[in-house]
Amino acid sequence: MKRDTAPTAAVIVIGNEILSGKTDEANVQFLGRELSKIGIVLMEARAIRDDTDEIVRHVNECRRAHNYVFTTGGIGPTHDDITAEAIASAFGTQLELNAEAVRRIGGAGDDLTEPRLKMAMIPVGASLVDNSVSRAPGFRLENVFVFAGVPSIARAMFEAVKGDLVGGNEIQSASVDVFLRESEIARPLQEIANANPDVEIGSYPFSRDGTYGANLVVRGTNPERISDVLDEIVMTMQAAGARTGEPR
Amino acid sequence: MKRDTAPTAAVIVIGNEILSGKTDEANVQFLGRELSKIGIVLMEARAIRDDTDEIVRHVNECRRAHNYVFTTGGIGPTHDDITAEAIASAFGTQLELNAEAVRRIGGAGDDLTEPRLKMAMIPVGASLVDNSVSRAPGFRLENVFVFAGVPSIARAMFEAVKGDLVGGNEIQSASVDVFLRESEIARPLQEIANANPDVEIGSYPFSRDGTYGANLVVRGTNPERISDVLDEIVMTMQAAGARTGEPR
Repeated sequence: MKRDTAPTAAVIVIGNEILSGKTDEANVQFLGRELSKIGIVLMEARAIRDDTDEIVRHVNECRRAHNYVFTTGGIGPTHDDITAEAIASAFGTQLELNAEAVRRIGGAGDDLTEPRLKMAMIPVGASLVDNSVSRAPGFRLENVFVFAGVPSIARAMFEAVKGDLVGGNEIQSASVDVFLRESEIARPLQEIANANPDVEIGSYPFSRDGTYGANLVVRGTNPERISDVLDEIVMTMQAAGARTGEPR
Repeated sequence: MKRDTAPTAAVIVIGNEILSGKTDEANVQFLGRELSKIGIVLMEARAIRDDTDEIVRHVNECRRAHNYVFTTGGIGPTHDDITAEAIASAFGTQLELNAEAVRRIGGAGDDLTEPRLKMAMIPVGASLVDNSVSRAPGFRLENVFVFAGVPSIARAMFEAVKGDLVGGNEIQSASVDVFLRESEIARPLQEIANANPDVEIGSYPFSRDGTYGANLVVRGTNPERISDVLDEIVMTMQAAGARTGEPR
């Protein structure tokens, strides 16, 4: 798979709760899937703590290494929401009260309490990202997109910016479960992988109710080639006596 | 919360499937929770691709930044299992056939096919990590622990090494749901956070069936202080007219 030519991205999930094991992370899967559809390879996802120095360090590493960076979390009104300020630091700029963000968050004047105004403090030079769910916007600074952490809002924000991203060919995949131990399928799979360098072949072992197997995934940008290689895998594994699931 | 004095850790999840959005990630939550119990702060978790250069880069960054690094995934017998080789590269060493690993994977001589022997190729200088589930061991090289990706095996491997980790005081937490928008609780919460710098207070907004609220979490190493501060939060929010859930 010609990964070298496809644009790449990183996701940075900001929030102590993910790392303490208390909260399920839901945005990485969504962004990975959606980026694949527009031909952008999600190269890495990082979950980090609500700590300014940590956010600055990770954002700067990722924005230099990838075409796009998406952060989620930490742009609300509470004391632990420090993402906007940290992003400004990472770019060597500052926060300012963004008039358009004030208008969007707005409503009547006395609704705009100090905590709500905090959500309108946006780095100088950033453009706003629409929030069709709860109004308070995200923002974009160069190649870094700053989204909310609440999954419904993160999704709406991605939809709002998707059209601005420069992608490549859709990255598609198909897979089949093979009910043999990985060590029994490794050699034929290696041969198929060697013979088909234009697709990426992955083997993901599982154990379900005491039955061992592997989900074999073929990924690439040419649907016919994916289908052909998956067929070859199924036939090879069945010829070796393996039970297989439905390709999907 | 005196985070500066607690040992820190990073988890590196290795495997394209997590990033393509196809597979749920299950190990970060588990490790985050277990590390908290032994007083080690999980500072970051990264999901990265099955790519030698990427693995080397991330492992080297993390092992220098943290007391412990745990990797999951990529130590099986198939062509896309490249973690052991990449870890060896990261440490400037090589793989060798580890006699003890051969014995553990073993059984009768002709069971040891080339793919199974691949799982006994361990970096020079590493010590083995027991696998009570499926025998093929993980390994440890200095402060880096290399585990399988299958959750049941990753858990067994963590249990096997837990006693060797130097931790601190257990990091505990308690939380309560408050059914108000975050902007309405931000100011009193800020005051409570300022007055109680020995605990960490986080606010995690949610929207359930159209009702907005936030899960307020108090975290620290002193259970009495956690309990006291949570009580203060509940009383303050109730006095402000908010409905609250059961503290937990």
